[in-house]
Amino acid sequence: MAGEEFRSGLRRRLAVARGDEPADLVLKGGRVASVFTGELLEADVAVSGQHVAGLGPGYEGRETFDARGLTILPGCLEGHMHLESTKLMPDQFARAVLPHGTTTVVIDPHEIANVFGLDGVRALLATAEGVPIDIFVMVSSCVPASEFESSGATVTAEEIAGFLREEPRALGIAEMMNYPAVAAGDEDSLAKIEAARAGKGPPHIDGHSPGLTGRDLNAYLAAGVRSDHECTTYEEVLEKRRLGMWIMIREGSAARNLEALIPLVLQHGPRNTMVCTDDMEPDDLLAEGHIDAVMRKAVRLGCPPHDALVMGTLFPARYHRLHEYGAVAPGYLADIVAVPDLEDFRPAAVWKRGRLVASHGEAVGDIRGPAAPDWMRGSVRVPELSAADFAVRANGRVRVIGVESGQIVTRVLMDEPPRRDGGALADPARDLAKIAVVERHRGTGRMGVGFVRGFGLQRGALASTYAHDAHNVVVVGVDDADMATTVNRLAETGGGQVAVSAGSVVGEVPCPIGGLLSDRPVEEVASAVAHMHEAVRDLGGTLQSPFMAMSFLALSVIPELKITDRGLVDTVRFELVPLEV
Amino acid sequence: MAGEEFRSGLRRRLAVARGDEPADLVLKGGRVASVFTGELLEADVAVSGQHVAGLGPGYEGRETFDARGLTILPGCLEGHMHLESTKLMPDQFARAVLPHGTTTVVIDPHEIANVFGLDGVRALLATAEGVPIDIFVMVSSCVPASEFESSGATVTAEEIAGFLREEPRALGIAEMMNYPAVAAGDEDSLAKIEAARAGKGPPHIDGHSPGLTGRDLNAYLAAGVRSDHECTTYEEVLEKRRLGMWIMIREGSAARNLEALIPLVLQHGPRNTMVCTDDMEPDDLLAEGHIDAVMRKAVRLGCPPHDALVMGTLFPARYHRLHEYGAVAPGYLADIVAVPDLEDFRPAAVWKRGRLVASHGEAVGDIRGPAAPDWMRGSVRVPELSAADFAVRANGRVRVIGVESGQIVTRVLMDEPPRRDGGALADPARDLAKIAVVERHRGTGRMGVGFVRGFGLQRGALASTYAHDAHNVVVVGVDDADMATTVNRLAETGGGQVAVSAGSVVGEVPCPIGGLLSDRPVEEVASAVAHMHEAVRDLGGTLQSPFMAMSFLALSVIPELKITDRGLVDTVRFELVPLEV
Repeated sequence: MAGEEFRSGLRRRLAVARGDEPADLVLKGGRVASVFTGELLEADVAVSGQHVAGLGPGYEGRETFDARGLTILPGCLEGHMHLESTKLMPDQFARAVLPHGTTTVVIDPHEIANVFGLDGVRALLATAEGVPIDIFVMVSSCVPASEFESSGATVTAEEIAGFLREEPRALGIAEMMNYPAVAAGDEDSLAKIEAARAGKGPPHIDGHSPGLTGRDLNAYLAAGVRSDHECTTYEEVLEKRRLGMWIMIREGSAARNLEALIPLVLQHGPRNTMVCTDDMEPDDLLAEGHIDAVMRKAVRLGCPPHDALVMGTLFPARYHRLHEYGAVAPGYLADIVAVPDLEDFRPAAVWKRGRLVASHGEAVGDIRGPAAPDWMRGSVRVPELSAADFAVRANGRVRVIGVESGQIVTRVLMDEPPRRDGGALADPARDLAKIAVVERHRGTGRMGVGFVRGFGLQRGALASTYAHDAHNVVVVGVDDADMATTVNRLAETGGGQVAVSAGSVVGEVPCPIGGLLSDRPVEEVASAVAHMHEAVRDLGGTLQSPFMAMSFLALSVIPELKITDRGLVDTVRFELVPLEV
Repeated sequence: MAGEEFRSGLRRRLAVARGDEPADLVLKGGRVASVFTGELLEADVAVSGQHVAGLGPGYEGRETFDARGLTILPGCLEGHMHLESTKLMPDQFARAVLPHGTTTVVIDPHEIANVFGLDGVRALLATAEGVPIDIFVMVSSCVPASEFESSGATVTAEEIAGFLREEPRALGIAEMMNYPAVAAGDEDSLAKIEAARAGKGPPHIDGHSPGLTGRDLNAYLAAGVRSDHECTTYEEVLEKRRLGMWIMIREGSAARNLEALIPLVLQHGPRNTMVCTDDMEPDDLLAEGHIDAVMRKAVRLGCPPHDALVMGTLFPARYHRLHEYGAVAPGYLADIVAVPDLEDFRPAAVWKRGRLVASHGEAVGDIRGPAAPDWMRGSVRVPELSAADFAVRANGRVRVIGVESGQIVTRVLMDEPPRRDGGALADPARDLAKIAVVERHRGTGRMGVGFVRGFGLQRGALASTYAHDAHNVVVVGVDDADMATTVNRLAETGGGQVAVSAGSVVGEVPCPIGGLLSDRPVEEVASAVAHMHEAVRDLGGTLQSPFMAMSFLALSVIPELKITDRGLVDTVRFELVPLEV
């Protein structure tokens, strides 16, 4: 903001605070939750421009909101998420989460970065222009995620440093997922740690270290990493917080850790702790909510409401050094939520930077950002496939990826698939499906094929170009021909997700922007997702979020066994392993 | 730090954390206080270079410290103080506070800035070069403190912005003392608020707002001010914290607010709260301690030790955005204190950036910084004075500054002084002394003379060039000739503090550096101060810290009645008032 604009806004804000000029908006008669003392204060809230000017009795404004019977909270701040999992462009994402009280998000645009590099991130940010939600960026640090993945782009330490220097919305560097490499002092990882020094103030580095413990955890922290959203047990989360990590308790569509981790907060308070969603399906966003849903569930699990509140507001703001965010207090941004019930957190009204943006569950006004540029379309490049491409030669026992509902870690299972004509087959009767990953950025046709258990599929196949982290095509099926049809369909639509049975598309969500994002309204996307999920259940699918589960099966930095276009990866020992034992 | 140096330090730190290389130092067998969970952890602490590399069992190092029976704490961080009140150069200050566990201080070099401007601040920082303590600066924002004061320098908004841009140790802008002007939207104050945007990251602005409440407090906060160290009552401190201020509970040599304010922490926990000293006499530092003494007293007043601990370590670090400070954890600076007793906080050993700097109450090694440049000497410019210069014409009732022990606010009293030859006189029998302020930067000889109650002086006079904020000569006495002698002596020594009785110097602390800082070792300075205090008691003085009390009597931004070289100032209405009622 230019000097004179800043100064005149400040001048007016002070006049409003003093009561010398009417506020732009006054929320009257409510109780304000102080995130600083954990109290409820009887106070009006006076807003001037984009900021809260004053709290106290008797403020008058050009506009008044009757807050009697309501509790006034700061807008929620999401400390770690991948926008791409919602499949929504920023404007549609805002339409989805503003009614739930989320007014600021810190994203790791990791999926777009894997497809298009940091130019894709810049283009994505440009589509958020004018959308009434603040989107900050932690710069994707691990593109590609590992040497086993074939991404569409590579992001170097120099590019990260440049992005941090130039982009005002860049706060630091995103989850350092290759935690073994960081702990081991791998030079490329150290170069990225060093790149974080190019940011504003001291390095700000998100972590990602499932199960990391003891000396390796110490080494990871010694490198300057300061957060983790991958804890799954109380023991793990306690060790990490003791050592100074900011704990992001994740409760998303696929990975749900709140119940396991809430004892940390019950026993040691909320210090250094926040909630996040990491990855959310659009239909879950509409049906369940966002950060409000996680806070609500925390309260149901015994967390004091004020502790839940700070974990969704002030503490993520503090962690990310967003000093004007996370509180309803003079000098803070007027990101405000009014709720009828402090234990429920469902907003009656939401303001972003002083502007009413949602009311009783609906976004207010025409929220629309610029369209994505054309070069972000048509990014799924695969040769036409047929059933034969999914044939597997295997004579005995094979490694099988074991998937569990609600977990992104997998287990290594062993099984002996049935055979026909020398080829190993899927076997729906014992929940044994095939899984394949097809390189799609450069049209090489390279693919890895293996087996997976846990989807419950009885017929057909599912495929997606949303597949961490390289976002190649991942396909799971019990019918080789249907598997081929899914991939061919994605090439046609420019990517997204699709379910096929007996040669026909039975459900799909086209995501033509990089194969990751839809260009449709949130309601349409959510409905397509819901319909597709139903179609998958009709095929016998038993997972709650089959596509999100699938999207993690190509991610080579999460234990124990994953698959990429290069084959099966033992992600504990970080090496490719053969299908047959 | 250059790239390659950073990288090689990081590489080695990780190797130490992993246990692949021996640490430089291991503290073995102690219990580490986690400021993140409030627990005591059985863990060795491995140090690599200037950082903590790892916490855990079995670390080995080139050097080992036997920490059995000891609790390991982070070094204390002083969040707000004026170094000048200690009269010590940085190296001697370090020698005084390192044995008490203070390893980092954030100073407002306000006194030096009032005498020499920001060039003085740069020169002061240069004398800290190589001294094993981290000194950060909040740039003095109010020089002069008000239009009623005649300082040696003026610091403009442009200079503040320049300093913030250029000086890596500058964190933000220091206490905005003219809080009425800020709240009122005075343009010069707004210009300084705007200058804070030149810093690293979002504006970081310390406050100073004794008794400020309601809408004016809201306006002050709306301007972006985020801390206060001037609270004196529970009601005040609660209102301020509710509104988002970081509370600095002050417990210094003159102003002691801990007992009144600790209920805030007992009732609402330590969030947004820290302890600070603001101003400390050197003898108090040696005898009582520093931040450790405040934490100790907090525990005596019922504060849980872990709450006291975070208020002296992690929380001031967080407030000041010093993200590598305030914890003993991997990746944090190895600023470490080992104490036998967690409720007492008296260190057995202290390390700064991994180096042993104090042991059992004594500084270790030769701690010495560069000398101050010659231009900082000889700054007391006053004409030779005589008794006649202190004569007061007054025929009836006069305003009297009422001083109370342990408070820097004063009361407006009224009295009718005795008269002789048409002049109003001091009257020791009813504790009525004269007070004068003599301009000393430009040799104008301008002086204001008035009356003060509360010192208890029966004979002689005291004078000091350490007088907030303009640091002119302030002199209190019951004998006009002795008053003249004190001022003439200070001109001779280059400034400092002096007590005179019957024409002779009975105690003094020369401070030739700007009239503010001694060039002598801390023990010598403390002993001179103690001797001088004794001399003052011999003169009948009853205040515990008469010179510190005196130093606030010329400060025109603290209620209610003060005096400058321009005369009496009503600091509530911010205007000059006549002596006679």
